[in-house]
Amino acid sequence: MGRVVELTELILRDAHQSLLATRMAMEDMIPACEDLDNAGYWSLECWGGATFDSCIRFLNEDPWERLRQFRKLLPKTKLQMLLRGQNLLGYRHYEDGVVERFVEKAAKNGMDVFRVFDALNDLRNLKTAVAAVKKTGKHAQGTICYTVSPVHTIDAFVDMAQHLKEMGADSICLKDMAALLKPQAAYDIVSGIKKKCGADTLVHIHAHATTGVTLVSLMKGIEAGCDIVDVALSALSLGSGHNPTEALIEMLEGTGYETRVNKDLVVKANSHFTKIRPRYKEFLSDFTGVDTEIFKSQIPGGMISNMESQLKGQGAGDRLQEVLLEVPNVRKDSGYPPLVTPSSQIVGTQAVFNVLMGKYKAMSGEFADLMLGYYGSTLGEKEPDVLAKAEAQAKKKPITCRPADLLKPEWEVLQADAAKLENFNGSDEDVLTFAMFPQVAPKFFKSRPQGPLNLGKDPAQQVAAPAPAAKPEAAAKGGAPKAPVTYVVSLNGKEHKVTVAAAE
Amino acid sequence: MGRVVELTELILRDAHQSLLATRMAMEDMIPACEDLDNAGYWSLECWGGATFDSCIRFLNEDPWERLRQFRKLLPKTKLQMLLRGQNLLGYRHYEDGVVERFVEKAAKNGMDVFRVFDALNDLRNLKTAVAAVKKTGKHAQGTICYTVSPVHTIDAFVDMAQHLKEMGADSICLKDMAALLKPQAAYDIVSGIKKKCGADTLVHIHAHATTGVTLVSLMKGIEAGCDIVDVALSALSLGSGHNPTEALIEMLEGTGYETRVNKDLVVKANSHFTKIRPRYKEFLSDFTGVDTEIFKSQIPGGMISNMESQLKGQGAGDRLQEVLLEVPNVRKDSGYPPLVTPSSQIVGTQAVFNVLMGKYKAMSGEFADLMLGYYGSTLGEKEPDVLAKAEAQAKKKPITCRPADLLKPEWEVLQADAAKLENFNGSDEDVLTFAMFPQVAPKFFKSRPQGPLNLGKDPAQQVAAPAPAAKPEAAAKGGAPKAPVTYVVSLNGKEHKVTVAAAE
Repeated sequence: MGRVVELTELILRDAHQSLLATRMAMEDMIPACEDLDNAGYWSLECWGGATFDSCIRFLNEDPWERLRQFRKLLPKTKLQMLLRGQNLLGYRHYEDGVVERFVEKAAKNGMDVFRVFDALNDLRNLKTAVAAVKKTGKHAQGTICYTVSPVHTIDAFVDMAQHLKEMGADSICLKDMAALLKPQAAYDIVSGIKKKCGADTLVHIHAHATTGVTLVSLMKGIEAGCDIVDVALSALSLGSGHNPTEALIEMLEGTGYETRVNKDLVVKANSHFTKIRPRYKEFLSDFTGVDTEIFKSQIPGGMISNMESQLKGQGAGDRLQEVLLEVPNVRKDSGYPPLVTPSSQIVGTQAVFNVLMGKYKAMSGEFADLMLGYYGSTLGEKEPDVLAKAEAQAKKKPITCRPADLLKPEWEVLQADAAKLENFNGSDEDVLTFAMFPQVAPKFFKSRPQGPLNLGKDPAQQVAAPAPAAKPEAAAKGGAPKAPVTYVVSLNGKEHKVTVAAAE
Repeated sequence: MGRVVELTELILRDAHQSLLATRMAMEDMIPACEDLDNAGYWSLECWGGATFDSCIRFLNEDPWERLRQFRKLLPKTKLQMLLRGQNLLGYRHYEDGVVERFVEKAAKNGMDVFRVFDALNDLRNLKTAVAAVKKTGKHAQGTICYTVSPVHTIDAFVDMAQHLKEMGADSICLKDMAALLKPQAAYDIVSGIKKKCGADTLVHIHAHATTGVTLVSLMKGIEAGCDIVDVALSALSLGSGHNPTEALIEMLEGTGYETRVNKDLVVKANSHFTKIRPRYKEFLSDFTGVDTEIFKSQIPGGMISNMESQLKGQGAGDRLQEVLLEVPNVRKDSGYPPLVTPSSQIVGTQAVFNVLMGKYKAMSGEFADLMLGYYGSTLGEKEPDVLAKAEAQAKKKPITCRPADLLKPEWEVLQADAAKLENFNGSDEDVLTFAMFPQVAPKFFKSRPQGPLNLGKDPAQQVAAPAPAAKPEAAAKGGAPKAPVTYVVSLNGKEHKVTVAAAE
């Protein structure tokens, strides 16, 4: 028998996040759980920022209760989550005590594998979370956000893996959120990690399918020694989602590599989601093909639609091409951050500002913070001129320390604020929900007793009555839920607040 | 620089055949021709049985005129067609004189590369066509229909390639119409051909994308030395179509292989078809994902929908699973024919008969002919019992000669019959059109003066008025146009005519 390649199934989290705007109700996942649990996956990813957000924002479902249910329904398989390092599942840096508390509670409620990443690949933003996971005895997966730039060499990624290992990571994830990972790069990075960090270093690849090449990248990664790959049942795969589980299994026949996943159970679980999928038609991503323009612009698809809607809002819908050409400049000036939430929005918005108002004539507060190190450090150097402008406009000094080092202990404050909310249940879990989504949590706590919603609809209902009540959801179709962002724009020394609504 | 991998672009033929039911009007292809011609493809596939059929059946367009237009619009690039060997573009065996005349006329009207195949891989059904192509000085591509069975070993495919080369084929095509070709098999077959037939033997892979694994198979085929691969612009790719051109190009970066195709021109041509695609929404295949169940049943998707509609017609829509299990038995009994038109329909219909009426209690005339050698020979042995039943029920002797050897010269008869038709223009091309589509050609000749139709519709029109006139077309959505087939069923010695309508 050949070498075993392990699989992580994404159907319970990233698959429907990428293709159904994270709207799948728990009730529609439950019937497949037994088959998924018995199929022989290395892990089942089932929790993360967008699912948490969607639970309380759209589904009136307690995300902690969802996790406990998964734990009961999936007793044999490791549960996996995606954690934004020091940001946890929220949109700002949290003080270490909050990070530690969150990890402890997630572990206690059933989480096994914590995939910890930072949008800027700043390892200092990972270390508290990784240490906290280690303390619980669970699996800490250190993550490299894959991106393409002159400074992101194979060696740089391999070095990062080595640092993650030194930090205590139990495995290394190469995370390709924009489907930029080409076959040769996958081969070279995995080979490099195995060589530098030891052949027994567990390497896990997460890749989206958007550009159409990444199943080949998984194959080359496997040939280079990759141990685990992420896949999604074919019913919710491809497009801006992931490579299909079934195709990955079949592709390996005769190659000397094999999975230990039971094909029949996979087919059975998939037929369930094949039936469920049409119920979420209104949230279904229109994009089912491939988009290789991403290789040229390096701008993820979701980011382009964001920028388009910002431009339209300013009556400048015709200037998208200029903005697309400006993004690589802004990215270079800011030290080549990977483009992933929140850096993708920050860079994209600044590119829009540069085109509409002149180069760095106006700067968003977030972009200034990015330049000045308040999100962490970037692999590339910052452009000194732009850095100086950021300092002048934001009237803030650049920092080189870990951003969270500037934060004071905040648990008690959060606890006290949460306690004032109607229907707060007194648990640390509720405090954490409030900490991460302070705008949404109060409303959620209030409506929680009414129980979970299922936004899926029978196809008949969809045709018969395009219910007006469904409109707000439909408007938010096509991506993970994102919090509206208010930008503080410094224009010639004066500050302006600009709120950019979630363009999803 | 690395080794050059050449590309054949399918957007003008198989891409829209597979995804838009072959309905694309010439007028919608013309604007992309200049870019396609300049892009640097090895060839542009633009003609074949289904496009010919669709032209005269649905588009009121002379397929010969389409070919001449392509020749004018694409002066720099080789034009390529798919030819069903002794069947030409029709549904029966033609006498050698007709085959020769067809090839001569196709070459004269502008065709450069003839991909010649036979559904049973019976080389005797290819030899007249290959010799005719050689006579014109054009490129004769000998084709292996890829399939999976106990007798279809790597060695068997490699031997077939050697025979094709001895027959005079200028290149060898490995044709994977059902997306069954897995990466390791692709590697092994291409390596085997290069080893046995010589490293300078041009090997060309044609693969559909249906199962989701074949881009990886193209990669492994290229690593084994494959010279040319078939791709389709992303706007009409994937699903039951093909792997996207853009993804193939990008996938090779850094691998030591490269194409000579200009990415910018590809993107430009693709943006044209991205705009055109929504106009054909009513013909667009619903299937955009992957289907790996084909590996288990070895039944192409189109064949399943055919069988489903036959079963429903008999009020036995609930018995599909039994039929799916019966297909491999029928295939084994008949010597493991590849499942491609017409063998897929013949085997599928017999499986339906076996389930509904008992095992070989009734036999279609076509299935009896297949058993008795009237379509050619199969690689596997026939089951003697079933062969005896076929002989008894069809009251015909089995043959071992080349089926076309039984045919008398027929050109003059065809010519005389065509001459009787209204608006026959006196050309050999019109005789050939009539020869291949005797039911459709008379009507087409009559309506030809009214000029080509464009069945594409503006999205606004589609929503505003689902025109009743469009209904017959919509009913035929979802596949290549197929002629209705009348089966002569022998049931307990009595013959019954059963007409199976085109279930497309």
